[in-house]
Amino acid sequence: MALYVQKYGGTSVGSVERIEAVADKVQGFKQQGHDIVVVVSAMSGETNRLIGLAKDIQSNPNPREMDVLVSTGEQVTIALLCMALAERGVSAKSYTGSQVKILTDSAHTKARIQDIEVSSMQKDLESGNVIVVAGFQGVDDQGNITTLGRGGSDTTGVALAAALKADECQIYTDVDGVYTTDPRVVEGARRLEQITFEEMLEMASLGSKVLQIRAVEFAGKYKVPLRVLSSFQDGPGTLITIEDDAAVEKPIISGIAFNRDEAKLTVMGVPDVPGVASRILGPVSRENIEVDVIVQNVAADNTTDFTFTVHRNDYDSAEKVLNQVAEELGAREVVGDNKIAKVSIVGVGMRSHAGVASKMFDALADENINIQMISTSEIKISVVIAEKYLELAVRALHSAFDMDVNDSVSE
Amino acid sequence: MALYVQKYGGTSVGSVERIEAVADKVQGFKQQGHDIVVVVSAMSGETNRLIGLAKDIQSNPNPREMDVLVSTGEQVTIALLCMALAERGVSAKSYTGSQVKILTDSAHTKARIQDIEVSSMQKDLESGNVIVVAGFQGVDDQGNITTLGRGGSDTTGVALAAALKADECQIYTDVDGVYTTDPRVVEGARRLEQITFEEMLEMASLGSKVLQIRAVEFAGKYKVPLRVLSSFQDGPGTLITIEDDAAVEKPIISGIAFNRDEAKLTVMGVPDVPGVASRILGPVSRENIEVDVIVQNVAADNTTDFTFTVHRNDYDSAEKVLNQVAEELGAREVVGDNKIAKVSIVGVGMRSHAGVASKMFDALADENINIQMISTSEIKISVVIAEKYLELAVRALHSAFDMDVNDSVSE
Repeated sequence: MALYVQKYGGTSVGSVERIEAVADKVQGFKQQGHDIVVVVSAMSGETNRLIGLAKDIQSNPNPREMDVLVSTGEQVTIALLCMALAERGVSAKSYTGSQVKILTDSAHTKARIQDIEVSSMQKDLESGNVIVVAGFQGVDDQGNITTLGRGGSDTTGVALAAALKADECQIYTDVDGVYTTDPRVVEGARRLEQITFEEMLEMASLGSKVLQIRAVEFAGKYKVPLRVLSSFQDGPGTLITIEDDAAVEKPIISGIAFNRDEAKLTVMGVPDVPGVASRILGPVSRENIEVDVIVQNVAADNTTDFTFTVHRNDYDSAEKVLNQVAEELGAREVVGDNKIAKVSIVGVGMRSHAGVASKMFDALADENINIQMISTSEIKISVVIAEKYLELAVRALHSAFDMDVNDSVSE
Repeated sequence: MALYVQKYGGTSVGSVERIEAVADKVQGFKQQGHDIVVVVSAMSGETNRLIGLAKDIQSNPNPREMDVLVSTGEQVTIALLCMALAERGVSAKSYTGSQVKILTDSAHTKARIQDIEVSSMQKDLESGNVIVVAGFQGVDDQGNITTLGRGGSDTTGVALAAALKADECQIYTDVDGVYTTDPRVVEGARRLEQITFEEMLEMASLGSKVLQIRAVEFAGKYKVPLRVLSSFQDGPGTLITIEDDAAVEKPIISGIAFNRDEAKLTVMGVPDVPGVASRILGPVSRENIEVDVIVQNVAADNTTDFTFTVHRNDYDSAEKVLNQVAEELGAREVVGDNKIAKVSIVGVGMRSHAGVASKMFDALADENINIQMISTSEIKISVVIAEKYLELAVRALHSAFDMDVNDSVSE
């Protein structure tokens, strides 16, 4: 008999019928003898409705009151789910973030969890109750309601699992696990049985939006086994573990992530002197533009070319900043391209396998796809290519690294 | 400079525009130098929406979770009003019932206030903040969210005014005060400048639905001056006071209340023995049927007739209960009429004035209205008449007691 923390997102509790389906699921686990703590999001659409009301009143709503407002979304869900459980004869008790209490700092709308009081929940668990906790919210040491920011319900689930020393934190969502890549792009994309936290972090930040990245970091830090499953169909999902558990027969590459909405900018002919990188990126970051891949090659004839990628929406403002910077630096010119995409292969296995990079580049060359930028880390290799080749590149790599469903079966 | 507790009901905060209008009003009071504590209800329609969700899940929703659910309605309003005040440069801080904390007993969905902590609000008031409190809700000593039941926001306002020793509790609503009777029935109905708590209690319970009756009781008990005003137009409203303040030139009758949805039932030929009243009403109340007027006349030939009124919706079930009771008691028969109405004249002045009753009966007789039942208290006289005469009776009495607008001006 285990203790599971189960998190159900907004789509999974998006209507009375779906809340009742979650109650059925929870009842099933309870009947198997498990202790269950459920974390829920607001019903899908509700948070946006509330934010809409706020923005009708203040274009830049007061953050403290914003948290008071949007935290009602999850509060509605916990009450309705407890009613659905009670209707099934399952005794359940709801907790708001304040009631738990999930202590956070006072950074309204983006608070961080500092501590969780477990004694009251543990007492209720011992009495046989299912505990239903409002995700995404907490309370600061002054008693103010705080929220963890969008998607923060995943973090609530992981934090509760860590605090309660749960056997597993199960994130129920609208996909049945983490895939080797997007099944809409590669028909043979395969659900992974396991993936490491590090790989998941690279996959998440690279655009596989299954899990909130802070929740994965948190789970890794506190070694909480994390499982992604579907609310709508049965199945084992994908277990996210620390590396040791997944060592045997680990494939070299776990997945292929990609990101479509990128743009790249290059400052050409930058004088090759110390401090030039920060003189270029400082003004960009002061405009609140997030920079993704950064590449600087070795200098020739005392100048170098400095390239980085940004979200496509930020392309125009980044270009404006760079033109001024280039003039100040005496650089030759600024060139850019907002029709690019990034493709990354991710896997802890590549650490110990030579030749992964060359196999990737070969596969792309075979398709006549030109690589514009390369960036690597310990467990991933990213390339920037023309956007029009994105699907072709992903399919070629998926096949080259033997990740297709058929390959997997025949292995 | 005064401290006012102002309560705005669901209609007054029913949309973003109306919340902004309330913010304008509060800003005006603040600019006059007053300290303001605002109590708000849920936006009109919101509580019903939430109850609808609950009833889709449980026909008889779990009371603890019902309170968690419906308390979100007021929480949304306090946040939005604080944003609207902030947008106007008025610093404001919202408080849920738990945050105040408004300590109640644990009777979910109909809790009673036991204590209110004022220190935190007082500190915020001293710093110049407007305090915006969620009405209708509290917290029990275990930290569970409770609600005071429908209309309980009035009670929150009065209780806060008492706890904070406010100069006045102002209830903003969609009418501009308490009237001598319903202006839809009597064109010349007049707004009262003042009315006593006792009169207001009789008016409220008799169908003038301006104020929640528990709030009036509470205000009377703690001697909180209470004022009913309109959210939508300026004006002094009606002040509800303890009797002494209103003694001078007090008219005999303050108002005429009436109730349309009544039905009467008579058990004829009941043996006139001790305990018969409770043997009749006991089974009725066990069916959760509320009884209003009860009349039993002196016995003739060892039997008596026992009559009472109920809400028209309860007529059929009350009749069924009575038929069985009549048989057990050996009573002659049960007769009833579900087309009756009750009209009451209310006024502390009648205590010291003889002849009020006969003046009332004369006025009705002049219109050929037959009186079916009579019931009296210290400050009111109620008669039951055929429903079709209701408007005629109210107008005749309003005129007989010199309450019309013109009479008042000429006095």
